[in-house]
Amino acid sequence: MIKIGLDMMGGDYAPLEAVKGAAVFLQENNEHVQLVLIGNEEKIKPIIENINLPSNLFSIVHAAEVIEMHEHPTKALKEKPQSSIAIGFQLLANNGIDAFISAGNTGAMMVGALFSIKKIEGVLRPTIGAYMPRENGTLGLLVDVGLNADCKPENLNQFATLGALFAEHVLKINNPKVGLVNLGEEEGKGNILTQASYTLLKENGNINFVGNIEGRDILVHKADVMVCDGFTGNVVLKMAESIYDITKRRNIEDEHFDRFNFEQYGGVPVLGVTKPVIIGHGISGSIAFKNMINIACQMIKTDLSGKIKECFSV
Amino acid sequence: MIKIGLDMMGGDYAPLEAVKGAAVFLQENNEHVQLVLIGNEEKIKPIIENINLPSNLFSIVHAAEVIEMHEHPTKALKEKPQSSIAIGFQLLANNGIDAFISAGNTGAMMVGALFSIKKIEGVLRPTIGAYMPRENGTLGLLVDVGLNADCKPENLNQFATLGALFAEHVLKINNPKVGLVNLGEEEGKGNILTQASYTLLKENGNINFVGNIEGRDILVHKADVMVCDGFTGNVVLKMAESIYDITKRRNIEDEHFDRFNFEQYGGVPVLGVTKPVIIGHGISGSIAFKNMINIACQMIKTDLSGKIKECFSV
Repeated sequence: MIKIGLDMMGGDYAPLEAVKGAAVFLQENNEHVQLVLIGNEEKIKPIIENINLPSNLFSIVHAAEVIEMHEHPTKALKEKPQSSIAIGFQLLANNGIDAFISAGNTGAMMVGALFSIKKIEGVLRPTIGAYMPRENGTLGLLVDVGLNADCKPENLNQFATLGALFAEHVLKINNPKVGLVNLGEEEGKGNILTQASYTLLKENGNINFVGNIEGRDILVHKADVMVCDGFTGNVVLKMAESIYDITKRRNIEDEHFDRFNFEQYGGVPVLGVTKPVIIGHGISGSIAFKNMINIACQMIKTDLSGKIKECFSV
Repeated sequence: MIKIGLDMMGGDYAPLEAVKGAAVFLQENNEHVQLVLIGNEEKIKPIIENINLPSNLFSIVHAAEVIEMHEHPTKALKEKPQSSIAIGFQLLANNGIDAFISAGNTGAMMVGALFSIKKIEGVLRPTIGAYMPRENGTLGLLVDVGLNADCKPENLNQFATLGALFAEHVLKINNPKVGLVNLGEEEGKGNILTQASYTLLKENGNINFVGNIEGRDILVHKADVMVCDGFTGNVVLKMAESIYDITKRRNIEDEHFDRFNFEQYGGVPVLGVTKPVIIGHGISGSIAFKNMINIACQMIKTDLSGKIKECFSV
């Protein structure tokens, strides 16, 4: 039985949307998955009763405290051991759950991941990616999108490997194409970081490196995994998010641009830590929560962490 | 009489679109501007006769050679002294023209600018920006967009000053707001470069610094001048360009997204060199050429180079 821990207190629309997402997941899911709902019992119980979750498929772990969005991550985790995030990581570290999901304080989630379940040996820096919708209906993975603002070539090279493993096993893309986000297509183009990274990526035997991709290629299907430093990735992601807002404000109805609604994707896992951890968007709705649970299931069933360990142990 | 030099051989649709652009400009323009058309006489004369330019408002300077788009800038300028770009810069350096415009080889234009007319004293690195269309109908200036892939905080601080002077005098924006492109809004956020740049920008008395802006703010009117390193700017610009292509492919008709058609803007000047130099998009059409001539006029009439010299001499 797979056990997935869900922070019921994280995100702007928690706990209601978290409960709704759990309900939709349990309705659709015919697998052996049990949800562990972590949060303030008094607040979540009435909602659960209202929404009518199948009682054999979930349990509640009470968490008396909540880490708010604006709190300092390290300080908050230290001062609030009874918070849903702190308890979630305790459970994850002690095998009480197999994966932990939260749409709460991103920094606290990162600190929790690094200090409770730790990095996979050989991984210099874990990373977080984001999906990029493309016109042909596929999703690309842009990695890193903000966790590592300053990067070295070795970091980008590892993001490529981590992203490719995620794309292969979770997104089910066979031999995913990996591109380096750069300011020109030709080898030799770029800033100091991308020039040096190119050399490493070309020699990386774990990936299918297709060379440089430009800003214009990010939203078309040129590479499945698009590697960049977290500064660039963050600017690109937030700009892509703003495109959806603009289309909505302008009453543009378009199937493709609707896929720029990043709320629906929920979140991409922290890649490079020993167990599945998924950090959701603050404004996650029920669909986002459901999708995050699905991604966690995929990660567990395909043993992505094990695959990453294997790859980095060579 | 203002004399503006136009490279007739630069760009994918030259010389036809360059001639058309000149014609539209001369029709609309009631100022004392004379165009100096630099290019292969045999090729441009028949087009000019066809399109019927007013003969008192232009002259032709023959250039026997052309620097092609793919050529190595320094090498090409050395080996092709009779090229339209080489002759353009000779004229500009010797006061034969007051501004030089080309949609040709960007690298050759940059090398030409730096070696013939040189940097303004005090400017560490000249820069090129690009317009960013925003929903309220205004244009923002994103600077740098690729000339300087690796930057130091002092470079970003100077781009801010150069961009603000351009926005004020040429775009006629009173006290333009300058924002630093970053991965978070709060002071202290960012990579090493933006953290250090923030401090300099805050102390820069020549600009109206409004703080950090995020990727989501680039396409809304939060800052008139948006400062970043050339790597980030290049990725953002090309991604913005691709949005227009996507809307066209999807038959989306929208006034705002139509303004993402960057071809219409023509080009933004090289900021920080002693005389007006404008480098156009390779796929410039007649409207782009016309707009570049207009921008050159504005730069000359407002003496932007003089204003920059003054600002950097203090």
